This record gives sequence, structure tokens and C-alpha cells, in this order.
Amino acid sequence: MTTKQLIAQIHKKKSFLCVGLDVDLTKIPEHLLKEEDPIFAFNKAIIDATHEFCVAYKPNTAFYEAYGIKGWMALEKTINYLNTNYPEIFTIADAKRGDIGNTSTMYAKAFFDDLGFDSVTIAPYMGKDSVEPFLAFEDKHTILLALTSNEGAFDFQTKKLEGTALYKQVLETSKTYKNAQNLMYVVGATKATYLQEIRQIVPDNFLLVPGVGAQGGSLKEVCNYGMNKNVGLLVNSSRGIIYASKGENFAQEAMKNAKELQNQMAQELARKF
Amino acid sequence: MTTKQLIAQIHKKKSFLCVGLDVDLTKIPEHLLKEEDPIFAFNKAIIDATHEFCVAYKPNTAFYEAYGIKGWMALEKTINYLNTNYPEIFTIADAKRGDIGNTSTMYAKAFFDDLGFDSVTIAPYMGKDSVEPFLAFEDKHTILLALTSNEGAFDFQTKKLEGTALYKQVLETSKTYKNAQNLMYVVGATKATYLQEIRQIVPDNFLLVPGVGAQGGSLKEVCNYGMNKNVGLLVNSSRGIIYASKGENFAQEAMKNAKELQNQMAQELARKF
Repeated sequence: MTTKQLIAQIHKKKSFLCVGLDVDLTKIPEHLLKEEDPIFAFNKAIIDATHEFCVAYKPNTAFYEAYGIKGWMALEKTINYLNTNYPEIFTIADAKRGDIGNTSTMYAKAFFDDLGFDSVTIAPYMGKDSVEPFLAFEDKHTILLALTSNEGAFDFQTKKLEGTALYKQVLETSKTYKNAQNLMYVVGATKATYLQEIRQIVPDNFLLVPGVGAQGGSLKEVCNYGMNKNVGLLVNSSRGIIYASKGENFAQEAMKNAKELQNQMAQELARKF
Repeated sequence: MTTKQLIAQIHKKKSFLCVGLDVDLTKIPEHLLKEEDPIFAFNKAIIDATHEFCVAYKPNTAFYEAYGIKGWMALEKTINYLNTNYPEIFTIADAKRGDIGNTSTMYAKAFFDDLGFDSVTIAPYMGKDSVEPFLAFEDKHTILLALTSNEGAFDFQTKKLEGTALYKQVLETSKTYKNAQNLMYVVGATKATYLQEIRQIVPDNFLLVPGVGAQGGSLKEVCNYGMNKNVGLLVNSSRGIIYASKGENFAQEAMKNAKELQNQMAQELARKF
């Protein structure tokens, strides 16, 4: 999917919501455990219920890998279901990969060509030749971890690397990579005040913002500091939507919460566009 | 496996060789492609031929994920084969994972409990709460990327973070993590001169050193600067061993190259112990 197509979808749906498909068998409704593939059954129901209100889905691959072969089969079924039934949806493999050139190319092929994801999240620690193999794929997007939303982000990311915080160096340096136009960045929403500084370095790139809950606490702040002329934001919610209820009505409750977030997003978009 | 058991194996076999099982279907002998599971057939033959000369095997998970479900099945069969037939061998899932706490726990369970690996490689970018879930597993080992052997290592790792190179900060900071005794570090062999400085920060930890070829170019230098009183080194060779030949005799040729490296290692060990 091109960035243009993604922007068009955002305006059409009045939403820049990404739903995180982080499926944990201990948290999904019990009646689904009887299904042949409970993970896929859960995802299918969530997708069918929420797709009108979001523009992207983001399975975190760890949750699938944790279930071995069965998990991978569920991931394959999920991405195939999305690509077949909702091809207008932007898909993110939240895999946080990063390896040397040759190996990165294998990962890129696996996620982009074989599984058919539009994008994949990548860790920057190994630098240029670990990232560029992903950037080489046309109309595919590489979402680089810049500033994550966890406590450990303060271990290295916010520390000064040759005068500038490491996460800013990641932004600055990655801009010089070949095919840098295919870059997006992960920026934790719990640090919305950082967004202003980030936008000075990467005014045009899309930012994937995790950490905004169903209550939409800091959504306004994220939009104030992070939105650009192309919207430039994908705001993720995982547990707040997919685990809205553990009852038989889980998909309807997920839809309600997705709709509520979409409503707030529509207001933010109306203010700017 | 405990660190003590690993050290005992090193002295028994007079080897600290790790064989990288980075299986690429375009590089393995053609006659194996007729097998039901060519990847596993290749690994089994390589393992049977080389196990006397090495103390560890390291499948890079990217190579398996690149083949989807079939790849994961081959990885499972490989680790099961190792654990059943050669339980004295140290196993490394070269996965370079790193995610927030909850998700790291799922990865740790998948690699340590379900697949039964002794260790897994982890990227440090997300800091403490992305690493500690791995460290919590007793007699399992977390191998943190410190200084990698690729060109991109100079993008961030060698730059100064608050006065000290980022890779040294990773060493210093990770030493303060809970259960830090379960840490090992990846240190690229192409920078053997860095090893002296690294040993000042982490005198006791094992170092996993990639980038030493079949010719053993810098093995002596790695040993001079990196070996400690417990040996403290695992030196990896992948392509130099497993792709020694593309003919029917591939396993014998792999054995020859493994044996040659083991011989050089035995000499280095004899010099010190």
C-alpha cells in the first residue's frame, strides 16, 4: 500500500486508529477455546466488528510465536483474511526485527512477500545495513523503533549520544538511509511532549503511536504535537479494544470502544482539516 | 544448562566452537531438496558430523521464519533432535528479540520452555524491562547484542552515549539488571581490539563472537583479548562450516572444517590452561 492510499483511507474513515491484535489465550472469551483455531476465530470476529472504525491492524508476532506452529498458522490466516476481505486496511507486523543485511533480507521477504504485510517494525541497534534491506521493498513500510513507551526506554534511548538523545540520532541517521521515504517511526504516546521535538526532525513521516488506551487519555496531546499536513499518525490501541469484554458479546464491546476512539479522532481531524 | 556445565564441556572437548545453523535452501546440496524436510535433513547431517568438535549450535531464526510454517517445523525438529541426542550441547536461538515486558515474557517462554533452547539473543534498545523477563529463567542464558560485526554497528553502537560508547553503556547498564548473572554478550570478532576494553567492564561473562571464518583469521587475537579464567568465549562459524561443500560429501567437509577450528582452539586452550 502506498502512503497516499493510507492517507486517503484515513480521511475517508475519519480515523487513524490501529488495532493491536495481541491475542493471549488466557484473555479471550472462554467459548472460543472450543474452536479449532481460537486465535484466528477471535481475530476474525474482532476484525469484522471493528474494521469500519480503524485503518490498520497490528499483530504483535510474539503472541503468535509463543504458540509455536499453531500460532504461526493463526498469524498466516489472519493476514490472509485481512488481505482478502479488507485490502484497504494497512497491516503492520509488529516483529521488532533487526539483523545483519543478508538475514534482514530474509525477514523482509518473509513479512512483505510471503505473508503480505504492508509494514514491519524494526529495532535500530544494528544500524544501516540491518534496516536498508527492508527499505528496498517498494510500497512497503519500515517502522523503526525510535522512542518506545516502556520504562526501559530511559536506559539508552533518551540518553545523549554525542550530544543528542539516542532516539533523535536514530531519527537523524535513518533519514540518510537509502529509500528513507519508506520509513515510519514508533513513538510512545506516554511521552507526547517529546513529539514536538520529533516533528522538527521528521516533519513528514508517519508515526506509529502505541500507549493510547480505550479512554483516549492523551489522544488530544498526541494530535496537537504529532499531526502533520498528511495526518502522519497511526494511533494504536490493543487491550483497550480487543479485551473490552470476556463475554459472548466481546466483538460488539470491541466495536463500541473502537467507535469511541474513532469518534475522538474524527473530532481531531475536523479541527485540523 | 548451567554455565559450569558449559565450561566443563569446553574443557572436555577442547573446543569453544559454536556452529551457526543458518540454512538457506539455495545453498544446500541439491540432492537434499528431494527430502521431505530438506532443512532438517541438512541440519541433522551437519550436527551428526560436527558435534564432537563443537560445544554449541546457533540457528538464526530468520532463516527458518523465511520459510513460514515449514521453517518453524524444521526449527522445532532441529532443537528436539539436539536436546534428545546431544543434551550436552549448548543451544542458542539467534532471534535478536526485544519487546516490552509482557511480550518479552511470551518470547522467553516460547524459546526457553516450549522450544527448549538454553539461550536466546536479545537486542538492548528497549532497555531493562525488555531484557529482565528473559533473565528470570533459571539456568537459561540471555545473550545481549553489545557490539555487532556489521558495518551498521558504527551508526550507533560505537558512538558516545553520555561520554561512553553506546555498546559499553549496554554492558555497564545491563550489569545492574536483576539476575544479570544469566547474561552473555554478542561481540563481533572483526573488532578484536575492542575486546580488551569489553573485558574490563564484563570480566566474567561469556562472549559470543561471530565473524570468525573457517580460516580462523583472528581467532588468536580473539583469544588473546577475550579469554578469561573460565574460557568465557563461544566463537561462532556458520557458512565456513555448513557450506564447506555443495556435494554429497557436504557433511564430511563440514566436519573437516569444524575439526580444523577445534584444533586451533585446543592450541589456544593449551596455552592458557
